[in-house]
Amino acid sequence: MLETTTSAIRPPDEAAMAAARELHSRLTKPAGSLGLLEDLSVRLAGLAGVCPPPVPEPAAVAIFAGDHGVHAQRVTPWPQEVTAQMIGNFLAGGAVVNAFARQAGASVTVVDVGVAHPLPVPEPVPAPAPASGSAASGPAVPSSDLAAPRLIDASVRRGTRDLSVTAALTRDEALAAVLTGVWVADELIDAGADILLTGDMGIGNTTPAAALIAAFTGADPLDATGRGTGVDDETYAHKVAVVRAALARHTPDPSDPLGVLAAVGGLEHAALAGLILGAAARRTPVLLDGVIAVSAALAAAAFAPDAVAAMVAGHRSAEPGATVALRHLGLDPLIDLGLRLGEGTGALLALPVVTGAVRVLHEVATFDSAGVAEK
Amino acid sequence: MLETTTSAIRPPDEAAMAAARELHSRLTKPAGSLGLLEDLSVRLAGLAGVCPPPVPEPAAVAIFAGDHGVHAQRVTPWPQEVTAQMIGNFLAGGAVVNAFARQAGASVTVVDVGVAHPLPVPEPVPAPAPASGSAASGPAVPSSDLAAPRLIDASVRRGTRDLSVTAALTRDEALAAVLTGVWVADELIDAGADILLTGDMGIGNTTPAAALIAAFTGADPLDATGRGTGVDDETYAHKVAVVRAALARHTPDPSDPLGVLAAVGGLEHAALAGLILGAAARRTPVLLDGVIAVSAALAAAAFAPDAVAAMVAGHRSAEPGATVALRHLGLDPLIDLGLRLGEGTGALLALPVVTGAVRVLHEVATFDSAGVAEK
Repeated sequence: MLETTTSAIRPPDEAAMAAARELHSRLTKPAGSLGLLEDLSVRLAGLAGVCPPPVPEPAAVAIFAGDHGVHAQRVTPWPQEVTAQMIGNFLAGGAVVNAFARQAGASVTVVDVGVAHPLPVPEPVPAPAPASGSAASGPAVPSSDLAAPRLIDASVRRGTRDLSVTAALTRDEALAAVLTGVWVADELIDAGADILLTGDMGIGNTTPAAALIAAFTGADPLDATGRGTGVDDETYAHKVAVVRAALARHTPDPSDPLGVLAAVGGLEHAALAGLILGAAARRTPVLLDGVIAVSAALAAAAFAPDAVAAMVAGHRSAEPGATVALRHLGLDPLIDLGLRLGEGTGALLALPVVTGAVRVLHEVATFDSAGVAEK
Repeated sequence: MLETTTSAIRPPDEAAMAAARELHSRLTKPAGSLGLLEDLSVRLAGLAGVCPPPVPEPAAVAIFAGDHGVHAQRVTPWPQEVTAQMIGNFLAGGAVVNAFARQAGASVTVVDVGVAHPLPVPEPVPAPAPASGSAASGPAVPSSDLAAPRLIDASVRRGTRDLSVTAALTRDEALAAVLTGVWVADELIDAGADILLTGDMGIGNTTPAAALIAAFTGADPLDATGRGTGVDDETYAHKVAVVRAALARHTPDPSDPLGVLAAVGGLEHAALAGLILGAAARRTPVLLDGVIAVSAALAAAAFAPDAVAAMVAGHRSAEPGATVALRHLGLDPLIDLGLRLGEGTGALLALPVVTGAVRVLHEVATFDSAGVAEK
């Protein structure tokens, strides 16, 4: 069933990219003067297979939430209950992601793929059964629901196992989370979203992200691991050691992305990989947030290398592993402001840059039409 | 009269900055996790003198346009007529700045402070007489006009003199342009703008910008001069030599900003310096665009050092002189995408980052109010 999605992912359309480059040369601005925005608009033309590509509006943020058995190893000073509490904050509209989403006009969907503690919200939307039916199945959600934050219950299990002592997930559990991500992508696109933004919530989730980045890129755990929400020197050294030991224990094979996700990943990481694959299969851009997102993007690229064409790197997280992953993917981030919050906040800040890059191809006059002389 | 403006510019309010830092520590996010956005919101609290500072909406872009006698030295391959032609494009809504302004919901005001060729538009708004009355005088413009691009005729002279052979402007001409900028700031703020964005148009205007940056920072002309719209190696070497010779001829004194602007500046540079001073005097943030803006910002800082508190660096232009100037001003740019278009485009791309940084202080829940545990 995942093969249905991955086999639908095609390489970028070279003709549409050439048309975008040619159009740029005729617009009323010096050639190349929009820098990376020009490259971005050309990439999005290639993804869409048409020039100009559609202006990516409206946008939908999908926040996948999960907990982590490795929390028991004290890799973070935050209590695990905060994952569930922050979901309450998202649904009440009180988090930074909500403030940025309101500003950007983006919808917010929270997907519980594996939160350990009870959620503070009584009536979640019923989840699809990811292993039955096509990837696009599941309950229809009316597009009017996009206006307010909503919760989807798609819990695979109440947190992963401790990756420092055993595999975090079974392959079936990892697959269920990936397919949930694919389903969410389809559902959001069917409801009208023209661009998806990755979000995440999960106390302790930078530890599996570091392990995924080291596994997929071959980077040393020291280079792939960061301080997350801001751990002290001692906790940081311990966190690096935990990642290093997990990799030594599981020796994950980067050519088997499901195996890597099961061994050292998290449920939100797996679901984000699925979201990216689902977006790529629908030729819809997916704007990546921080280190959790780019660790999931490595998994998505391992499932389907052409999925990279759908990825836009929203920002460069302060987490060093994010830079390692972006380099491996060949992606240049749009924003670099030292953010390390997650939730989708960095992707939301970058959204107007993406929209603006495409808008230029739709709205700017040519030298001919505007009666402006060329050099 | 300019002293009325500069003496109104006050240092940032330390109490408001402390309140913003304290508020950040209570919001539902790890301390420091919004990186430079936190610093930015603290600076804007200091500028406004209140925490939280007002969300900077609506925004107004002011594009100052002028021509340059040094164009005769072939420092650019573009014909001088393009300055006037691009004003027609701005007013028709066909330029990149228009596309970005529509997206951001910002108004666009074009101010002719010294275009050499006839403008393609018949009925400009009458200009104020900058040397008479207070800096805030001039025709009232109804705020409903903010919706469509408009033109203000405030021409000081039809282009500067050739700075490579004589002073570009008299001191009176430079002062008239500065006061026009102050007046435009007052007018836009009176009409409701809560943040001003700098824009510029002027074929050849990166040459005086390089001279201004070298004069105010002491940088070598080679480090302050860039390729502008994209000149070849030969033209670039010539451009550097022109800047070097102009500095040797005029030996501008950086402690006399009006003298520097008159000797080696441009009318749009002088007017932008005035816009910045006018915004600072009103405790209103001014979002700087590229190399023209930051060269003008150096002049504004020389007139009134505390004006820096009102400046937000929108982006890092591909022009090397912009980085020299930003370092001198102590400003970190928000966006770094290799743009070198001007018009205000880089500032507009950064606007949602500024708005978002302030919005966090207004809209995000505290740990207490959201019932989220702390570490």
